[in-house]
Amino acid sequence: MFRLQPIFFVVGIMVIIIGVSMMIPAAVDLYYGNPDWKIFAQASMTSIGLGGMACLACRSEIGPRVNARQGYVLTVFSWIAVSLAGALPLWFSSLDISFCDAVFETVSGLTTTGSTVLSALDDMPPGLLLWRSILQWLGGIGIIVTALALLPMMRVGGMQLFQMESSDRSEKLSPRIRDMCLQIVMIYVGLSVICMVLYRIFGMTWFDAINHGMSTLATGGYSTSDLSFAKFDSSLALHWVGIIFMFAGALPFTAYAVLVRKRDIRAIANNQQIRIFLLIIAVFTGLLTLRLMHISDDGFFRSLTMAAFNLVSVITTTGYASGDYLQWGPAAIMLFFFATFIGGCSGSTAGGFKMFRLYVVFTGLKAHFMRLRSPSAVIVSRIDKHEITSDIYNAVTVYVFLLTISYIAISVALALTGLDLVTSMSAAATALANVGPGLGPIIGPAGNFQSLPDAAKWILDVAMVLGRLEFETLLVLLLPAFWRD
Amino acid sequence: MFRLQPIFFVVGIMVIIIGVSMMIPAAVDLYYGNPDWKIFAQASMTSIGLGGMACLACRSEIGPRVNARQGYVLTVFSWIAVSLAGALPLWFSSLDISFCDAVFETVSGLTTTGSTVLSALDDMPPGLLLWRSILQWLGGIGIIVTALALLPMMRVGGMQLFQMESSDRSEKLSPRIRDMCLQIVMIYVGLSVICMVLYRIFGMTWFDAINHGMSTLATGGYSTSDLSFAKFDSSLALHWVGIIFMFAGALPFTAYAVLVRKRDIRAIANNQQIRIFLLIIAVFTGLLTLRLMHISDDGFFRSLTMAAFNLVSVITTTGYASGDYLQWGPAAIMLFFFATFIGGCSGSTAGGFKMFRLYVVFTGLKAHFMRLRSPSAVIVSRIDKHEITSDIYNAVTVYVFLLTISYIAISVALALTGLDLVTSMSAAATALANVGPGLGPIIGPAGNFQSLPDAAKWILDVAMVLGRLEFETLLVLLLPAFWRD
Repeated sequence: MFRLQPIFFVVGIMVIIIGVSMMIPAAVDLYYGNPDWKIFAQASMTSIGLGGMACLACRSEIGPRVNARQGYVLTVFSWIAVSLAGALPLWFSSLDISFCDAVFETVSGLTTTGSTVLSALDDMPPGLLLWRSILQWLGGIGIIVTALALLPMMRVGGMQLFQMESSDRSEKLSPRIRDMCLQIVMIYVGLSVICMVLYRIFGMTWFDAINHGMSTLATGGYSTSDLSFAKFDSSLALHWVGIIFMFAGALPFTAYAVLVRKRDIRAIANNQQIRIFLLIIAVFTGLLTLRLMHISDDGFFRSLTMAAFNLVSVITTTGYASGDYLQWGPAAIMLFFFATFIGGCSGSTAGGFKMFRLYVVFTGLKAHFMRLRSPSAVIVSRIDKHEITSDIYNAVTVYVFLLTISYIAISVALALTGLDLVTSMSAAATALANVGPGLGPIIGPAGNFQSLPDAAKWILDVAMVLGRLEFETLLVLLLPAFWRD
Repeated sequence: MFRLQPIFFVVGIMVIIIGVSMMIPAAVDLYYGNPDWKIFAQASMTSIGLGGMACLACRSEIGPRVNARQGYVLTVFSWIAVSLAGALPLWFSSLDISFCDAVFETVSGLTTTGSTVLSALDDMPPGLLLWRSILQWLGGIGIIVTALALLPMMRVGGMQLFQMESSDRSEKLSPRIRDMCLQIVMIYVGLSVICMVLYRIFGMTWFDAINHGMSTLATGGYSTSDLSFAKFDSSLALHWVGIIFMFAGALPFTAYAVLVRKRDIRAIANNQQIRIFLLIIAVFTGLLTLRLMHISDDGFFRSLTMAAFNLVSVITTTGYASGDYLQWGPAAIMLFFFATFIGGCSGSTAGGFKMFRLYVVFTGLKAHFMRLRSPSAVIVSRIDKHEITSDIYNAVTVYVFLLTISYIAISVALALTGLDLVTSMSAAATALANVGPGLGPIIGPAGNFQSLPDAAKWILDVAMVLGRLEFETLLVLLLPAFWRD
């Protein structure tokens, strides 16, 4: 029998967390005398009340035990419940936006995508801006913990590679994983605070620093200005703080935990994912720098900064914009389009295809070509001492197939709502990889998702969650066989 | 030791065949009193002479024995030699085009892509038009025979599925394969003649019927008019002849051979590839028909004809145009874009991803989801009684990876020559899948490849051959390890 009880218990806790978090913008708006504080307070009490009821009704003596099959349902239900709860204050606020827009902004926040339907951000009450940043920050740590504790158990997209337990069907979080999660939350908080302080030191106001600090570490990309990061155009130092901490947010957080425990920098320096990631960023940034120096009068350092900032912003799936890279010529646009898919390291706040899958794909190709010459050769590939078994290879290829099918389906669905080719194709990519801006005049880095039809926004909601949950977690629920006992 | 001797022998024979074929346009131009006949005659003698020298120098008592490793080199060398020989008459003809354009037109012809750099086709001397059609027709049968005799031995992209021999390293064509090839050539000739006769009956001139008959069966798409098939806009009957024979050209020719031998229609009706192909065409045509009826005043039958013709033209990788489908709205454009990649059945003249790979991908996904529920289940998938082993599954995933990498590389390379996003991305797709027209105002169905920069044309030459040889056959030659003994 399929037990929903433990699932509703955990979902209830999630909704309570969201509800409690709403007290922060409520307090800030109260302090600044903004009437929205009542909306936040009401939404907070509603969320805590509903979440609490779910917890109380579904609590159990033995604590919440979840197996792999329940894991899928839990993950998807949590996303729906938390997105609806998080949308409440936006919906009822002084912004006067539709339910569709409120949900889009919340899903885009929680998935750390960062596509926005709001404009006139610079004049927006502080509570609302803070709430958007908090959504991203919570979404960021949420996805790290999911990638650590749930996805490996569910063997999604090759994530069993990062399994910390020998048994693959453990029914309860082991103390080791629980300790690891706690440690990683501390690291996440610590890095966020350092980022905020550095933003403040190099010239942001405290309010801007706190908001951008949250959306930087979460690789989310929400800003407090319609200009996004171009608001700080004059300060290259702020751009470099951004580059470093977007990068930091896209690294595997387990590597930080090992670094803290063993106090050995090799935890970072020898990590296979991080090495590939650095290599890709270095090569692409180099090319874009040359291009920028060619087309503008900017010197080397400013070109390097702009190239690195925009590339790191897209490849870490953050999505801050600083200068419109659609003006950098067709080859640069193409490069940004494909970079949209790539993503950061697994076990980070970044979305996209991710480094370990790139590595698995290239190892697979290498092994294939080696077997062409010596058909009987036994080829063992490893990533950070873990053997890449055929199981993992197959799970990665399944991920590739599901990504492709989802991408085609979402693109066609968006085109059916009347969007043009470039907007549909780049919106599908940016949503599935949780990046933020797309291409073209409408949703490009200088644009906004406001003008899209409602149908397109709902489709993008699904796409953002689909990408965040690595496709399989959501798609498996569509199979009738999944629900059969 | 790597022996080049048998390779040059076979390449010599190919060049002789091309040279002998040039006598046909030479004779036609002589008959019509066109001075180009001398160019064709000279090019013919040059090709026969050079090819003959290669054959004589490299002949051997034991006949040409080729193993898998030599197969790669043979295939690639043949393509280069035949493309250069085929370009000779175009280069020196009264057209006065550059070497780059002559090679592009020849490669596009031989790969049955059908992208053209020539315009004013309606006023062109008959010999040149005929030569373009002959290039496609020879390319078409060439690729069927390659898919039958060479690719399975080389295990490219899962083609070992279609292996007819039990031994996978046979050094010489077995009598059975040789008989099969001969039979298939006869079927190809027969179908082409029937198509030509039907074109003539329903209103084309004999010259148009012969040219279009060749480029229809080859799923090539060269026409004798700048309007492409829209020249016959008034005759829906001609469109249906085109639909049926483009479809016929994209079916596995081994199925025809079985049909002829066993006189049992189930050879076609029960073929897994053909069933999926029909299903996809039916669904897409249905959607496009509804769309056309919605946006125009045309009745059901005319809408159905136009929808079926253009979809079948793209999905069989023919590339005739009849009416500009870029006017059918964004969803239709998107559908045509993705249809460009799909392609026909393996063992046909069609390019693209192909039906059996789609089937393997979906069986792989199905098996993956079944194992989620019952991890210990043993799942055996079959296509037409052949078991889809993990070997074949892996080869198909390698094909998917190589396609993706090639697509990204070609798109970016094209953008670097200055082409815009839509032109670069659709040109890369149309070349790799050997379709013909791309999207956008420049290379769309109403456009022409003439205005592209030379660099882009050379890149597309590589892309067309890359797609035609299923990526691996060409890419493997780039590995240093391949050349090591």
